[in-house]
Amino acid sequence: MSKENLSIVKIGGNVIEDTEALSQFLEGFSKLKGKKILVHGGGKRATHIASKLGITSNMVNGRRITDANTLDVITMVYGGLVNKNIVAKLQGLNTDAIGLTGADINSIYSEKRPVKEIDYGFVGDVKKVNYKSINRLIEADFTPVFCAITHDKNGQLFNTNADTIASELAIGLSKLYHVELYYCFEKNGVLMSVDDDNSVIDYMDTGTYESLKHDGVFHDGMLPKLENSYYALESGVSRVFIGNPTVISNKNQKFTTLYL
Amino acid sequence: MSKENLSIVKIGGNVIEDTEALSQFLEGFSKLKGKKILVHGGGKRATHIASKLGITSNMVNGRRITDANTLDVITMVYGGLVNKNIVAKLQGLNTDAIGLTGADINSIYSEKRPVKEIDYGFVGDVKKVNYKSINRLIEADFTPVFCAITHDKNGQLFNTNADTIASELAIGLSKLYHVELYYCFEKNGVLMSVDDDNSVIDYMDTGTYESLKHDGVFHDGMLPKLENSYYALESGVSRVFIGNPTVISNKNQKFTTLYL
Repeated sequence: MSKENLSIVKIGGNVIEDTEALSQFLEGFSKLKGKKILVHGGGKRATHIASKLGITSNMVNGRRITDANTLDVITMVYGGLVNKNIVAKLQGLNTDAIGLTGADINSIYSEKRPVKEIDYGFVGDVKKVNYKSINRLIEADFTPVFCAITHDKNGQLFNTNADTIASELAIGLSKLYHVELYYCFEKNGVLMSVDDDNSVIDYMDTGTYESLKHDGVFHDGMLPKLENSYYALESGVSRVFIGNPTVISNKNQKFTTLYL
Repeated sequence: MSKENLSIVKIGGNVIEDTEALSQFLEGFSKLKGKKILVHGGGKRATHIASKLGITSNMVNGRRITDANTLDVITMVYGGLVNKNIVAKLQGLNTDAIGLTGADINSIYSEKRPVKEIDYGFVGDVKKVNYKSINRLIEADFTPVFCAITHDKNGQLFNTNADTIASELAIGLSKLYHVELYYCFEKNGVLMSVDDDNSVIDYMDTGTYESLKHDGVFHDGMLPKLENSYYALESGVSRVFIGNPTVISNKNQKFTTLYL
């Protein structure tokens, strides 16, 4: 028996921060047919509120160190402010949303990132997606909305990369569904030339990816997204789409389709 | 066929703010047998964080006016920080918790409090508890953890009294369950003399309540709780217990039982 479709859509901070863009996106998301999950990052609002609270974000090699105070801010901003406003807006659009961290229904278990050169603090690497519990929500016709927070099943919350959460959810749920994963961000897709938004690569299989990577086409921000994507494809996810937020509603637009 | 039991437990700000008291309470709550729901207030942490963010809480007649900035802080602190840390701690105690506002699964619909002498701002009065949706979570063996936020089903969140949320949930779910409602606060129960914590009234029916109210026994903080309680009892809730947080785990302690 063929599996039912499930769309997992990740939106980045640039959409979250722009009220108009967020409204447009959520309208498109609410119209997306079939079972679906939304994953959102938090953008710069956490940094902004942290600085107002007198908490300085400690960055090492461009990566934020999550100390206890920073984790509190992330829990407030991503888990509370951003997540619950998205849920309320989706409810206004007749999408029966439910906001979640990885602690809720023990949906995403993670472990503290091992300390090598850098101690990232309260940053968790995903170890297990409890896809059966998440599916109980989906089966009840709810639409899960995940923020980028996980937990260690021992009372500790962790800051976790939203792209990774999206790909791990996609991998976990591909045991039950035919999963399509959408990464929505500020560009029109994966670009041949980072400064030319029209240089979208329409289709990219593993061979093309490896070859272009070797040629140094992809910039630092794109590489982890692509690594997540091909790992997801190798682990059972059917398709990955990368593009701007309209990719979910208008497939005539430019965007990139990744496949094995 | 007799209905299954459901315990709805409301804890106040004094428990939330005391890490040790909260841990003890959550241990007791996790051991509580049968289906259950937790409702929490937020305490003074929202006021504290608001003041750090330069947002002054505008109080009129001892009641907080919820402007847009204050609502954001409440959404961060109650919906994010407090709620998600309680969920993570309960998961550590093997209770399969799920944190909710009234916007999640459209569980609690409210309307902006009508403006008479005072405009309370973004404060919602509960109009409808979607007990069937909440029951889908309970039937899936999840334990809902509600913070004191509701919504208007049109994208707007509202600040709502936590005691009221607890009683409205109890009333709504009494259509499906034999509901016992617990109000946990800093006293041992309803007191004959507010300064004497040993003057607990063990049992109080409607007649006794009306007579003591007439005599002016209850102070201002207790009256709304009792009004909520008797309204809940008249609307189908089986029993209401008022006491300190141990009331849920040790029924040998002093506490007050309310009944019709």
